[in-house]
Amino acid sequence: MSHILILGGDGYLGWPTAMYFSIRGHEVTVVDNYFRRNACKEMDTGMLYSVPSLTDRSNTWYERTGKEIKVVISDLNDPESMRKLFNGKVNYDWSKDKKYTGIPETVVHYAEQPSAPYSLINYKCADFTLMNNLRVTNNLMWALRDYARETHVIKLGTMGEYGTPNIDIEEGWIEIKHKNRKDKFLFPRQGSSIYHTSKIMDTDLLWLGVRIWNLRVTDLMQGPVYGIETEETKIDKDFQTIFNYDEIFGTIINRFITQAVAGYPLTVYGKGGQTRGYLNIKDTLQCVYKSFLSPAKSGELRIFNQIVETFSVNELAKKILKVGNDRNHNVKIDHISNPRKESESHYYNPIYQGLLDIGVKPNYLTEDVINSIFKIVEEHSKKIRKDVIYRGIKW
Amino acid sequence: MSHILILGGDGYLGWPTAMYFSIRGHEVTVVDNYFRRNACKEMDTGMLYSVPSLTDRSNTWYERTGKEIKVVISDLNDPESMRKLFNGKVNYDWSKDKKYTGIPETVVHYAEQPSAPYSLINYKCADFTLMNNLRVTNNLMWALRDYARETHVIKLGTMGEYGTPNIDIEEGWIEIKHKNRKDKFLFPRQGSSIYHTSKIMDTDLLWLGVRIWNLRVTDLMQGPVYGIETEETKIDKDFQTIFNYDEIFGTIINRFITQAVAGYPLTVYGKGGQTRGYLNIKDTLQCVYKSFLSPAKSGELRIFNQIVETFSVNELAKKILKVGNDRNHNVKIDHISNPRKESESHYYNPIYQGLLDIGVKPNYLTEDVINSIFKIVEEHSKKIRKDVIYRGIKW
Repeated sequence: MSHILILGGDGYLGWPTAMYFSIRGHEVTVVDNYFRRNACKEMDTGMLYSVPSLTDRSNTWYERTGKEIKVVISDLNDPESMRKLFNGKVNYDWSKDKKYTGIPETVVHYAEQPSAPYSLINYKCADFTLMNNLRVTNNLMWALRDYARETHVIKLGTMGEYGTPNIDIEEGWIEIKHKNRKDKFLFPRQGSSIYHTSKIMDTDLLWLGVRIWNLRVTDLMQGPVYGIETEETKIDKDFQTIFNYDEIFGTIINRFITQAVAGYPLTVYGKGGQTRGYLNIKDTLQCVYKSFLSPAKSGELRIFNQIVETFSVNELAKKILKVGNDRNHNVKIDHISNPRKESESHYYNPIYQGLLDIGVKPNYLTEDVINSIFKIVEEHSKKIRKDVIYRGIKW
Repeated sequence: MSHILILGGDGYLGWPTAMYFSIRGHEVTVVDNYFRRNACKEMDTGMLYSVPSLTDRSNTWYERTGKEIKVVISDLNDPESMRKLFNGKVNYDWSKDKKYTGIPETVVHYAEQPSAPYSLINYKCADFTLMNNLRVTNNLMWALRDYARETHVIKLGTMGEYGTPNIDIEEGWIEIKHKNRKDKFLFPRQGSSIYHTSKIMDTDLLWLGVRIWNLRVTDLMQGPVYGIETEETKIDKDFQTIFNYDEIFGTIINRFITQAVAGYPLTVYGKGGQTRGYLNIKDTLQCVYKSFLSPAKSGELRIFNQIVETFSVNELAKKILKVGNDRNHNVKIDHISNPRKESESHYYNPIYQGLLDIGVKPNYLTEDVINSIFKIVEEHSKKIRKDVIYRGIKW
């Protein structure tokens, strides 16, 4: 049994990750400042259903499974809050019998503002994104340096760090031959938003920590995640994860399916040739867990491209239109003027072998899988708000 | 006559840059929050002499030259403070007849925490460095986006962004051929401190702004600067620039010369094979001015490697020992245990052609030049504090 600390444990991926580790017998502590929930309220975004507080979910989890997930509500932008999680003292005492103690073996770091459109709403949102994401990562890195150099960090990066280069995207590293000499470098990266750029910076920061302090880091370059259910969310409806279907926090496949159910044309930006790698939420959990089982070495920044297949936006739209129409929705596709600055047709050939090598068994985007998401979204169809799906946040 | 805004206009390079533009007839506004002065006090660092406040220097400048340098004391970490400099309104009224008005044609951005050792003192200094440097750059970028997309930014980067790769260092960009395909990328970068990493992030951020908002940016990858005098500092002793000789803010050549004068052995870290590119403070001014005269185009991130020659630490120590002993100092060299994590012998071959192409005439590190710095340092020899020269801030 290991002690796992999940930063950002309230989010779309954080909470399911917590349950996934907990059900497997690990001691899990989740930390969150409710940024995502608060931002969803402030921005009036689309959430398919409401979810109980982290503490309530944790209590229900204990009732249903007999397992504890410890909850710390804390803003990790404050270095002192981060350091309390690593200094080995009993700093949090949130109920009589549940205390956070000791130094975690593994930290899963999801505690970031995760939306590209959010990061470009205006200068305040950009500032928040940069400061939050960099600061949490930097605070984590220094807490590890000062208290816990052996702790393995599993950090969520994004495939968007690479952008859409005209060469194959390797897993994190590339050997460059130049004028008869050669060296190995981080694969060149250029993000297309403040959010993506903040993740590039995270990687640079952790790479510094790995080199100068021998930290152990796995950076998962994740593609857009889709899906709504995991084995653990099925145990109780209170365990459902936060599901957004709006432009700001909703990822594309989830959003398109919701649009299909709501009778809102699928909003393809421009030509729709934008190609990305995707993965099921179940595979996110697998990838994190397998990385935990085979940790990075001391002084290693290990990078995996965390995707299992690639699609263009047009391909996704067609798949969802097909399944939607089979389910008697009247699905339409609308090619709207692209609000983003991005290539609408480009080369895209990422390598994604590392996670398969450590044992991940991919779930692909089959019609069955799409149907299963449709089914859950349909249960909430009356509550879907068309007015918040698209707002045209421009780059 | 152009209107030039100098962010960080109180610093070692900022103030001489302000005078350089002012004497040439441009309307100059300097902005500073006195971070450097305050940090020097708090850290009890070594400054060769005290300098008058920015406002006092500006008033003396007006008396001696009849030219105005407008002063704004403001912390550009605050986005609103930054925006006031660009929104075209009369926001600062610091004396009856001197007002900041209008939108600057050129911004010279020095407003950063500039020390690698400072950035690694502890987690608070690291946090400050990241937040300050990124935030000022981001605030600048958004102010330009919202009010002044035609304004040319001259940003001070550092050669340290590249680190010491085993391939030639191009000027900012490299074409990578990989598996029979090719693309052009920012030259791979890996800094050896939080400070250097913050500058990599600045470049990534500005590159985003250039791509999505067509900003105009010149990023000067500057090597360590040395020297104490410019044509303008000679006009009045009140115009001398801040000169540090300590490990935190003192650059190596200035520091070694001061150590030689003080009878403190030159502190070579480890083997001393660390090689870098250097330039005279006079060339910093030339490089910025020539960049101003030939601005980057709209939608261009233009990168110059701002150095004029390269030396190893051993070569520098030998040069300073030679001149110091000729001047009857008893100079010793001490190879101390390296407090930094860095290669002590490595390949280093940077290209630096772009600035020569736009008209910079280099000043090299001749014995005459070293003698002229010695001469000024000797005038202050009695005040040099040996206790603050080296503190062993470890990486």
